Amino acid sequence: MRVVVPFDATNPKTRLDQVLNDEEREQFANAMIDDVIETIQATGYTPEIIATQPIDKPVSVTVDRRNLDTCINAQLAEGSYPIAIVMADLALISPRHVERFFSLSGDIVIAPGRNGGTNAIIVRSSEFSVDYHGISFLDHLQIAYNNGLSVNEFDSYRFGTDIDEPEDLVEVLLHTDNRSAKYLRNIGLSLDSSTPRVSITRDA
Amino acid sequence: MRVVVPFDATNPKTRLDQVLNDEEREQFANAMIDDVIETIQATGYTPEIIATQPIDKPVSVTVDRRNLDTCINAQLAEGSYPIAIVMADLALISPRHVERFFSLSGDIVIAPGRNGGTNAIIVRSSEFSVDYHGISFLDHLQIAYNNGLSVNEFDSYRFGTDIDEPEDLVEVLLHTDNRSAKYLRNIGLSLDSSTPRVSITRDA
Repeated sequence: MRVVVPFDATNPKTRLDQVLNDEEREQFANAMIDDVIETIQATGYTPEIIATQPIDKPVSVTVDRRNLDTCINAQLAEGSYPIAIVMADLALISPRHVERFFSLSGDIVIAPGRNGGTNAIIVRSSEFSVDYHGISFLDHLQIAYNNGLSVNEFDSYRFGTDIDEPEDLVEVLLHTDNRSAKYLRNIGLSLDSSTPRVSITRDA
Repeated sequence: MRVVVPFDATNPKTRLDQVLNDEEREQFANAMIDDVIETIQATGYTPEIIATQPIDKPVSVTVDRRNLDTCINAQLAEGSYPIAIVMADLALISPRHVERFFSLSGDIVIAPGRNGGTNAIIVRSSEFSVDYHGISFLDHLQIAYNNGLSVNEFDSYRFGTDIDEPEDLVEVLLHTDNRSAKYLRNIGLSLDSSTPRVSITRDA
Protein backbone atom coordinates (compact mmCIF):
# COMPACT_ATOMS: atom_id res chain seq x y z
CA MET A 1 0.00 0.00 0.00
CA ARG A 2 1.14 3.53 -0.85
CA VAL A 3 0.70 6.00 2.00
CA VAL A 4 0.47 9.64 0.96
CA VAL A 5 0.57 12.51 3.45
CA PRO A 6 -0.33 15.91 2.02
CA PHE A 7 1.24 18.85 3.84
CA ASP A 8 0.41 22.52 3.61
CA ALA A 9 3.82 24.00 4.37
CA THR A 10 2.72 27.54 3.50
CA ASN A 11 1.41 29.48 6.50
CA PRO A 12 0.05 26.32 8.15
CA LYS A 13 -2.56 26.05 10.90
CA THR A 14 -3.88 29.59 10.67
CA ARG A 15 -6.76 28.81 13.03
CA LEU A 16 -4.24 28.39 15.84
CA ASP A 17 -3.12 32.00 15.51
CA GLN A 18 -4.76 33.07 18.76
CA VAL A 19 -2.45 30.73 20.63
CA LEU A 20 0.66 30.34 18.47
CA ASN A 21 2.60 32.94 16.50
CA ASP A 22 3.67 32.37 12.88
CA GLU A 23 6.96 30.69 13.71
CA GLU A 24 5.35 28.48 16.35
CA ARG A 25 2.61 27.38 14.00
CA GLU A 26 5.18 26.36 11.43
CA GLN A 27 7.24 24.50 14.02
CA PHE A 28 4.20 22.81 15.50
CA ALA A 29 2.92 21.75 12.06
CA ASN A 30 6.35 20.23 11.42
CA ALA A 31 6.31 18.43 14.76
CA MET A 32 2.94 16.92 13.87
CA ILE A 33 3.98 15.69 10.42
CA ASP A 34 7.20 14.31 11.91
CA ASP A 35 5.06 12.34 14.39
CA VAL A 36 2.81 11.12 11.59
CA ILE A 37 5.81 10.05 9.47
CA GLU A 38 7.41 8.17 12.36
CA THR A 39 4.13 6.53 13.33
CA ILE A 40 3.53 5.26 9.80
CA GLN A 41 7.13 4.07 9.49
CA ALA A 42 6.72 2.14 12.73
CA THR A 43 4.00 0.09 11.05
CA GLY A 44 6.39 -0.90 8.27
CA TYR A 45 5.09 1.49 5.62
CA THR A 46 6.95 4.38 4.01
CA PRO A 47 4.96 7.58 3.75
CA GLU A 48 5.32 9.86 0.74
CA ILE A 49 4.87 13.57 1.41
CA ILE A 50 3.14 15.87 -1.06
CA ALA A 51 3.96 19.42 0.02
CA THR A 52 3.05 22.90 -1.19
CA GLN A 53 6.72 23.92 -1.04
CA PRO A 54 10.07 22.17 -0.52
CA ILE A 55 10.60 20.78 2.98
CA ASP A 56 13.32 18.63 4.46
CA LYS A 57 11.98 15.29 5.67
CA PRO A 58 13.57 11.84 5.90
CA VAL A 59 11.16 10.45 3.29
CA SER A 60 10.21 11.24 -0.30
CA VAL A 61 8.81 14.76 -0.72
CA THR A 62 7.03 15.84 -3.90
CA VAL A 63 6.27 19.52 -4.30
CA ASP A 64 2.86 20.16 -5.82
CA ARG A 65 1.45 23.66 -5.55
CA ARG A 66 -1.96 22.82 -6.94
CA ASN A 67 -4.99 22.60 -4.66
CA LEU A 68 -5.41 19.56 -2.44
CA ASP A 69 -8.03 17.80 -4.56
CA THR A 70 -5.99 18.17 -7.74
CA CYS A 71 -2.84 16.93 -5.98
CA ILE A 72 -4.49 13.87 -4.49
CA ASN A 73 -6.50 12.95 -7.58
CA ALA A 74 -3.25 13.08 -9.57
CA GLN A 75 -1.78 10.58 -7.11
CA LEU A 76 -4.86 8.35 -7.38
CA ALA A 77 -4.62 8.52 -11.17
CA GLU A 78 -1.23 6.85 -11.06
CA GLY A 79 -3.23 3.67 -10.48
CA SER A 80 -1.19 2.02 -7.76
CA TYR A 81 -3.81 0.70 -5.35
CA PRO A 82 -4.43 0.51 -2.48
CA ILE A 83 -3.41 4.03 -1.60
CA ALA A 84 -3.97 5.63 1.77
CA ILE A 85 -4.24 9.40 2.20
CA VAL A 86 -3.45 10.41 5.77
CA MET A 87 -3.64 14.00 6.99
CA ALA A 88 -0.47 15.51 8.42
CA ASP A 89 -2.12 16.88 11.59
CA LEU A 90 -3.28 13.63 13.16
CA ALA A 91 -1.11 14.14 16.22
CA LEU A 92 -2.92 11.53 18.30
CA ILE A 93 -2.34 8.46 16.18
CA SER A 94 0.10 5.77 17.20
CA PRO A 95 1.17 2.61 15.35
CA ARG A 96 -1.59 0.44 16.81
CA HIS A 97 -4.23 2.85 15.48
CA VAL A 98 -2.60 2.90 12.06
CA GLU A 99 -2.41 -0.89 12.03
CA ARG A 100 -6.12 -1.14 12.82
CA PHE A 101 -6.87 1.32 10.00
CA PHE A 102 -4.71 -0.45 7.45
CA SER A 103 -6.24 -3.82 8.37
CA LEU A 104 -9.74 -2.82 7.23
CA SER A 105 -11.26 -4.02 3.98
CA GLY A 106 -13.49 -2.14 1.56
CA ASP A 107 -13.16 -0.32 -1.75
CA ILE A 108 -13.05 2.79 0.39
CA VAL A 109 -12.12 2.95 4.08
CA ILE A 110 -12.79 6.36 5.57
CA ALA A 111 -11.91 7.87 8.93
CA PRO A 112 -14.25 10.78 9.66
CA GLY A 113 -12.90 13.85 11.39
CA ARG A 114 -14.70 16.45 13.43
CA ASN A 115 -17.07 18.72 11.55
CA GLY A 116 -17.53 16.52 8.51
CA GLY A 117 -13.89 16.12 7.58
CA THR A 118 -12.08 13.16 6.04
CA ASN A 119 -8.97 12.62 8.14
CA ALA A 120 -7.76 9.50 6.38
CA ILE A 121 -8.96 7.35 3.53
CA ILE A 122 -7.88 4.14 1.85
CA VAL A 123 -8.76 3.88 -1.84
CA ARG A 124 -8.78 0.55 -3.63
CA SER A 125 -10.66 1.52 -6.79
CA SER A 126 -9.89 3.69 -9.78
CA GLU A 127 -13.55 4.75 -9.79
CA PHE A 128 -12.99 6.99 -6.78
CA SER A 129 -11.81 10.58 -6.59
CA VAL A 130 -11.49 12.89 -3.62
CA ASP A 131 -13.30 16.13 -2.88
CA TYR A 132 -11.99 17.70 0.30
CA HIS A 133 -14.05 20.86 0.00
CA GLY A 134 -17.43 21.32 1.68
CA ILE A 135 -18.55 18.42 3.88
CA SER A 136 -15.95 16.01 2.56
CA PHE A 137 -17.09 13.02 4.62
CA LEU A 138 -20.58 13.12 3.06
CA ASP A 139 -19.16 13.95 -0.37
CA HIS A 140 -16.87 10.93 -0.22
CA LEU A 141 -19.73 8.64 0.79
CA GLN A 142 -21.71 10.00 -2.14
CA ILE A 143 -18.86 9.56 -4.63
CA ALA A 144 -18.45 5.97 -3.46
CA TYR A 145 -22.19 5.34 -3.69
CA ASN A 146 -22.40 6.85 -7.17
CA ASN A 147 -19.69 4.45 -8.32
CA GLY A 148 -21.04 1.34 -6.62
CA LEU A 149 -18.10 1.12 -4.23
CA SER A 150 -18.19 -0.49 -0.80
CA VAL A 151 -17.41 1.83 2.11
CA ASN A 152 -16.03 0.88 5.50
CA GLU A 153 -16.20 3.62 8.13
CA PHE A 154 -13.19 3.54 10.44
CA ASP A 155 -14.45 4.45 13.91
CA SER A 156 -11.45 6.00 15.69
CA TYR A 157 -11.26 8.82 18.20
CA ARG A 158 -7.59 9.35 17.48
CA PHE A 159 -7.91 9.40 13.71
CA GLY A 160 -10.99 11.57 14.16
CA THR A 161 -9.08 14.28 16.01
CA ASP A 162 -7.26 16.56 13.58
CA ILE A 163 -5.54 19.52 15.16
CA ASP A 164 -6.92 22.77 13.80
CA GLU A 165 -8.35 24.83 16.64
CA PRO A 166 -7.00 25.91 20.04
CA GLU A 167 -9.35 23.43 21.74
CA ASP A 168 -7.69 20.64 19.75
CA LEU A 169 -4.40 21.41 21.49
CA VAL A 170 -6.08 20.17 24.67
CA GLU A 171 -6.41 16.78 22.99
CA VAL A 172 -2.70 16.72 22.11
CA LEU A 173 -1.67 17.43 25.70
CA LEU A 174 -4.19 14.93 27.08
CA HIS A 175 -3.57 11.98 24.84
CA THR A 176 0.02 11.91 23.62
CA ASP A 177 3.59 12.43 24.68
CA ASN A 178 5.10 12.65 21.22
CA ARG A 179 6.99 15.49 19.52
CA SER A 180 3.82 17.52 19.08
CA ALA A 181 2.95 17.43 22.77
CA LYS A 182 6.54 18.05 23.80
CA TYR A 183 6.69 21.07 21.50
CA LEU A 184 3.58 22.59 23.09
CA ARG A 185 4.97 22.00 26.57
CA ASN A 186 8.35 23.43 25.59
CA ILE A 187 6.81 26.74 24.59
CA GLY A 188 4.98 26.89 27.91
CA LEU A 189 1.52 25.56 27.12
CA SER A 190 -0.30 23.39 29.63
CA LEU A 191 -3.79 22.23 30.50
CA ASP A 192 -6.03 24.42 32.61
CA SER A 193 -8.80 22.47 34.31
CA SER A 194 -9.97 25.35 36.49
CA THR A 195 -12.41 26.40 33.73
CA PRO A 196 -15.73 24.59 33.08
CA ARG A 197 -14.12 23.08 29.99
CA VAL A 198 -10.46 22.12 30.01
CA SER A 199 -8.48 24.80 28.16
CA ILE A 200 -4.92 25.75 27.27
CA THR A 201 -2.93 28.18 29.34
CA ARG A 202 0.52 29.67 28.70
CA ASP A 203 3.28 30.42 31.16
CA ALA A 204 3.57 34.14 31.86
CA MET B 1 -22.72 -7.35 32.43
CA ARG B 2 -24.78 -4.60 34.04
CA VAL B 3 -25.15 -1.49 31.89
CA VAL B 4 -25.91 1.71 33.78
CA VAL B 5 -26.92 4.94 32.05
CA PRO B 6 -26.94 8.03 34.28
CA PHE B 7 -29.35 10.74 33.17
CA ASP B 8 -29.58 14.32 34.31
CA ALA B 9 -33.29 14.93 33.81
CA THR B 10 -33.21 18.32 35.55
CA ASN B 11 -32.59 21.20 33.14
CA PRO B 12 -30.46 19.05 30.83
CA LYS B 13 -27.99 20.19 28.19
CA THR B 14 -27.70 23.81 29.30
CA ARG B 15 -24.80 24.46 26.92
CA LEU B 16 -27.20 24.03 24.01
CA ASP B 17 -29.29 26.98 25.16
CA GLN B 18 -28.12 29.22 22.32
CA VAL B 19 -29.72 26.85 19.85
CA LEU B 20 -32.53 25.09 21.74
CA ASN B 21 -35.05 26.50 24.21
CA ASP B 22 -35.78 24.79 27.56
CA GLU B 23 -38.50 22.52 26.25
CA GLU B 24 -36.44 21.54 23.20
CA ARG B 25 -33.40 20.74 25.31
CA GLU B 26 -35.51 18.43 27.46
CA GLN B 27 -37.06 16.76 24.44
CA PHE B 28 -33.70 16.39 22.69
CA ALA B 29 -32.06 14.94 25.82
CA ASN B 30 -34.88 12.42 25.96
CA ALA B 31 -34.48 11.55 22.29
CA MET B 32 -30.79 10.89 22.90
CA ILE B 33 -31.32 8.63 25.91
CA ASP B 34 -34.07 6.79 24.03
CA ASP B 35 -31.56 6.16 21.23
CA VAL B 36 -28.95 4.97 23.73
CA ILE B 37 -31.46 2.63 25.42
CA GLU B 38 -32.57 1.15 22.11
CA THR B 39 -28.99 0.76 20.89
CA ILE B 40 -27.93 -1.10 24.03
CA GLN B 41 -31.05 -3.28 23.93
CA ALA B 42 -30.22 -4.19 20.34
CA THR B 43 -26.96 -5.74 21.56
CA GLY B 44 -28.88 -8.01 23.96
CA TYR B 45 -28.22 -6.05 27.14
CA THR B 46 -30.76 -4.26 29.33
CA PRO B 47 -29.73 -0.78 30.41
CA GLU B 48 -30.63 0.51 33.87
CA ILE B 49 -31.25 4.24 34.12
CA ILE B 50 -30.15 6.28 37.15
CA ALA B 51 -31.98 9.59 36.91
CA THR B 52 -32.05 12.79 38.95
CA GLN B 53 -35.85 12.75 38.91
CA PRO B 54 -38.58 10.31 37.87
CA ILE B 55 -38.83 9.71 34.13
CA ASP B 56 -40.89 7.30 32.10
CA LYS B 57 -38.73 4.86 30.16
CA PRO B 58 -39.28 1.27 29.02
CA VAL B 59 -36.49 0.02 31.32
CA SER B 60 -35.68 0.16 35.03
CA VAL B 61 -35.30 3.73 36.34
CA THR B 62 -33.78 4.46 39.76
CA VAL B 63 -34.06 8.00 41.06
CA ASP B 64 -30.93 9.19 42.81
CA ARG B 65 -30.59 12.92 43.44
CA ARG B 66 -27.01 12.75 44.70
CA ASN B 67 -24.11 13.94 42.53
CA LEU B 68 -22.95 11.75 39.67
CA ASP B 69 -19.86 10.35 41.40
CA THR B 70 -21.82 9.35 44.50
CA CYS B 71 -24.54 7.75 42.37
CA ILE B 72 -22.17 5.72 40.26
CA ASN B 73 -19.86 4.70 43.08
CA ALA B 74 -22.95 3.42 44.95
CA GLN B 75 -23.73 1.28 41.90
CA LEU B 76 -20.15 0.00 41.74
CA ALA B 77 -20.27 -0.81 45.47
CA GLU B 78 -23.07 -3.28 44.80
CA GLY B 79 -20.27 -5.52 43.57
CA SER B 80 -21.88 -6.98 40.47
CA TYR B 81 -19.06 -6.91 37.89
CA PRO B 82 -18.52 -6.22 35.09
CA ILE B 83 -20.52 -3.04 35.05
CA ALA B 84 -20.55 -0.56 32.19
CA ILE B 85 -21.36 3.11 32.67
CA VAL B 86 -22.54 4.68 29.43
CA MET B 87 -23.40 8.36 29.12
CA ALA B 88 -26.92 9.23 27.98
CA ASP B 89 -25.85 11.71 25.30
CA LEU B 90 -23.88 9.39 23.02
CA ALA B 91 -26.21 10.00 20.11
CA LEU B 92 -23.80 8.58 17.53
CA ILE B 93 -23.42 5.05 18.83
CA SER B 94 -25.05 2.11 17.10
CA PRO B 95 -25.13 -1.56 18.09
CA ARG B 96 -21.94 -2.45 16.25
CA HIS B 97 -20.02 0.21 18.20
CA VAL B 98 -21.46 -1.03 21.49
CA GLU B 99 -20.58 -4.61 20.60
CA ARG B 100 -16.99 -3.61 19.92
CA PHE B 101 -16.85 -1.77 23.25
CA PHE B 102 -18.33 -4.66 25.23
CA SER B 103 -15.94 -7.14 23.60
CA LEU B 104 -12.84 -5.49 25.06
CA SER B 105 -10.92 -6.96 27.98
CA GLY B 106 -9.23 -5.17 30.86
CA ASP B 107 -9.94 -4.36 34.50
CA ILE B 108 -10.99 -0.98 33.15
CA VAL B 109 -12.07 -0.21 29.58
CA ILE B 110 -12.43 3.49 28.99
CA ALA B 111 -13.81 5.47 26.06
CA PRO B 112 -12.41 9.00 26.14
CA GLY B 113 -14.64 11.89 25.16
CA ARG B 114 -13.72 15.29 23.84
CA ASN B 115 -12.02 17.62 26.30
CA GLY B 116 -10.85 14.98 28.74
CA GLY B 117 -14.19 13.36 29.42
CA THR B 118 -15.05 9.74 30.13
CA ASN B 119 -17.94 8.87 27.86
CA ALA B 120 -18.17 5.20 28.78
CA ILE B 121 -16.31 2.85 31.05
CA ILE B 122 -16.39 -0.84 31.89
CA VAL B 123 -15.35 -1.71 35.43
CA ARG B 124 -14.31 -5.24 36.37
CA SER B 125 -12.67 -4.57 39.75
CA SER B 126 -13.91 -3.47 43.16
CA GLU B 127 -10.71 -1.45 43.52
CA PHE B 128 -11.98 1.18 41.12
CA SER B 129 -14.14 4.21 41.75
CA VAL B 130 -15.21 7.01 39.42
CA ASP B 131 -14.40 10.70 39.54
CA TYR B 132 -16.20 12.57 36.81
CA HIS B 133 -15.10 16.01 37.90
CA GLY B 134 -12.03 17.77 36.51
CA ILE B 135 -10.24 15.91 33.72
CA SER B 136 -12.01 12.64 34.32
CA PHE B 137 -10.14 10.68 31.65
CA LEU B 138 -6.78 11.37 33.32
CA ASP B 139 -8.26 10.92 36.79
CA HIS B 140 -9.60 7.50 35.84
CA LEU B 141 -6.24 6.43 34.41
CA GLN B 142 -4.63 7.54 37.66
CA ILE B 143 -7.14 5.73 39.87
CA ALA B 144 -6.58 2.56 37.86
CA TYR B 145 -2.80 2.96 38.06
CA ASN B 146 -2.90 3.60 41.80
CA ASN B 147 -4.77 0.34 42.27
CA GLY B 148 -2.67 -1.76 39.91
CA LEU B 149 -5.51 -2.22 37.42
CA SER B 150 -5.10 -2.86 33.71
CA VAL B 151 -6.61 -0.23 31.40
CA ASN B 152 -7.78 -0.68 27.84
CA GLU B 153 -8.48 2.52 25.95
CA PHE B 154 -11.42 2.17 23.59
CA ASP B 155 -10.60 4.19 20.49
CA SER B 156 -13.96 5.22 19.03
CA TYR B 157 -15.04 8.39 17.27
CA ARG B 158 -18.68 7.66 17.96
CA PHE B 159 -18.25 6.90 21.64
CA GLY B 160 -15.93 9.89 21.85
CA THR B 161 -18.59 12.31 20.64
CA ASP B 162 -20.90 13.33 23.47
CA ILE B 163 -23.43 15.98 22.59
CA ASP B 164 -22.98 19.08 24.73
CA GLU B 165 -22.28 22.06 22.52
CA PRO B 166 -23.98 23.51 19.43
CA GLU B 167 -21.09 22.27 17.27
CA ASP B 168 -21.84 18.73 18.46
CA LEU B 169 -25.27 18.96 16.84
CA VAL B 170 -23.41 19.03 13.53
CA GLU B 171 -22.08 15.56 14.36
CA VAL B 172 -25.60 14.26 15.06
CA LEU B 173 -26.91 15.49 11.72
CA LEU B 174 -23.84 14.21 9.87
CA HIS B 175 -23.54 10.74 11.31
CA THR B 176 -26.93 9.39 12.36
CA ASP B 177 -30.53 9.13 11.32
CA ASN B 178 -31.92 8.08 14.69
CA ARG B 179 -34.48 9.78 16.95
CA SER B 180 -31.98 12.45 17.98
CA ALA B 181 -31.25 13.48 14.42
CA LYS B 182 -34.90 13.32 13.44
CA TYR B 183 -35.80 15.53 16.40
CA LEU B 184 -33.32 18.17 15.32
CA ARG B 185 -34.61 18.08 11.75
CA ASN B 186 -38.22 18.23 12.93
CA ILE B 187 -37.62 21.50 14.76
CA GLY B 188 -36.04 22.94 11.63
CA LEU B 189 -32.32 22.49 12.19
CA SER B 190 -30.06 21.58 9.31
CA LEU B 191 -26.42 21.70 8.28
CA ASP B 192 -24.95 24.87 6.85
CA SER B 193 -21.81 24.24 4.84
CA SER B 194 -21.56 27.78 3.45
CA THR B 195 -19.43 28.78 6.46
CA PRO B 196 -15.71 27.84 6.77
CA ARG B 197 -16.72 25.29 9.36
CA VAL B 198 -19.97 23.36 8.98
CA SER B 199 -22.54 24.84 11.35
CA ILE B 200 -26.19 24.50 12.31
CA THR B 201 -28.87 26.70 10.84
CA ARG B 202 -32.56 26.97 11.69
CA ASP B 203 -35.51 27.47 9.36
CA ALA B 204 -36.84 31.01 9.55
